[in-house]
Amino acid sequence: MFNASYFDVRSASVHCMAGPRGEYKKSAQRREQILDAAFDVFSRSGYTAGSVSEIARQVGISQTSVVHHFAGGKIALLQGVLERRDTTAENSLENLEGRAFLAGLVAISRNQAGQRGVVQLYRILSTEATDPDHPAHGYFRARSHRIADAVTHAFAQAEDAGDLRDGVEPHAAALATLAMTEGLEMLWLYGHDVDMAEDVRRFISTFLVQPL
Amino acid sequence: MFNASYFDVRSASVHCMAGPRGEYKKSAQRREQILDAAFDVFSRSGYTAGSVSEIARQVGISQTSVVHHFAGGKIALLQGVLERRDTTAENSLENLEGRAFLAGLVAISRNQAGQRGVVQLYRILSTEATDPDHPAHGYFRARSHRIADAVTHAFAQAEDAGDLRDGVEPHAAALATLAMTEGLEMLWLYGHDVDMAEDVRRFISTFLVQPL
Repeated sequence: MFNASYFDVRSASVHCMAGPRGEYKKSAQRREQILDAAFDVFSRSGYTAGSVSEIARQVGISQTSVVHHFAGGKIALLQGVLERRDTTAENSLENLEGRAFLAGLVAISRNQAGQRGVVQLYRILSTEATDPDHPAHGYFRARSHRIADAVTHAFAQAEDAGDLRDGVEPHAAALATLAMTEGLEMLWLYGHDVDMAEDVRRFISTFLVQPL
Repeated sequence: MFNASYFDVRSASVHCMAGPRGEYKKSAQRREQILDAAFDVFSRSGYTAGSVSEIARQVGISQTSVVHHFAGGKIALLQGVLERRDTTAENSLENLEGRAFLAGLVAISRNQAGQRGVVQLYRILSTEATDPDHPAHGYFRARSHRIADAVTHAFAQAEDAGDLRDGVEPHAAALATLAMTEGLEMLWLYGHDVDMAEDVRRFISTFLVQPL
């Protein structure tokens, strides 16, 4: 239900609308506006309670226009919002290895401390989607395992470089890092005195010969 | 919106219905049935999307009957579900101090590994409720801080008993323990190879002179 085929449908739709250059640009801008509104609505209401009609109203266009840009409807909108965000995060880690990749995770945490809405949206959606019947379950499950693999790989590179403490197992360290990061986000959202980036930095450092 | 007054309203309502002993017992049983259904509906749909009509249908009674038992409606139902669960957990920690309290947290994690629905419900509701406009925001925020205080107190008792490693600060250790516990629940719900109770036990042990 929630997989790569939505990207295909959407890309095809964008392609058909392209036409002259100005029109393509206008369409791309409208897509961004719709994604901004979808982000806002899903942040406030969650995916289940959020509606396409509210997103359309916020942009000031009809539901039909929204579906013209996102042929898959609500699921395609969610996918678009998540994809845009994940791309930013993944780009920031590109070409980083071992310790540098782990330091990149700290930088992402630091960046998120100024984006309460983003953190909240991810927490709400990824938690709703723990239900195997949720349309985004496959997406979030795959995302969670993809991130765990990438962080495990970074810890393994750190091990090869002699940067890991004796006895630290890369996969266990990766899972502990992810658990701590997600848990700290929840505490932060509930107003506990945590400094997400600093606490993540310190936690990852417990696995390293030299602190980050 | 979501505070102690709901308990008062509800208790008063139970009291009025009491009458002869058999009738009281019947009413108490019906309340439990309604809470079972509310738990089930909120687990599957979350609080926002879950409906009183669905809960009523599941019990096989009218919405009016549900509201007869839970005068505050949907919010009172949620409060009832949460309260019932929290009471069980809090009772299990009663009279425990320091290391024994920390071991009690591990026992709660072990118990939850057999209750995927419970873990999922708490994750979904407490995450939805990070929104300050959510009716259960005050409840979950207070709950989160109450738990943090209790765990901080247990670490402080462990410190007084000489059970904490040098340099471990009770409040920081408590927040890290809560973050790790919540984060591990998420990884577990997404099918990662974590053993929640064992991982929590090991994590808490990193703060202690002798492992739990």
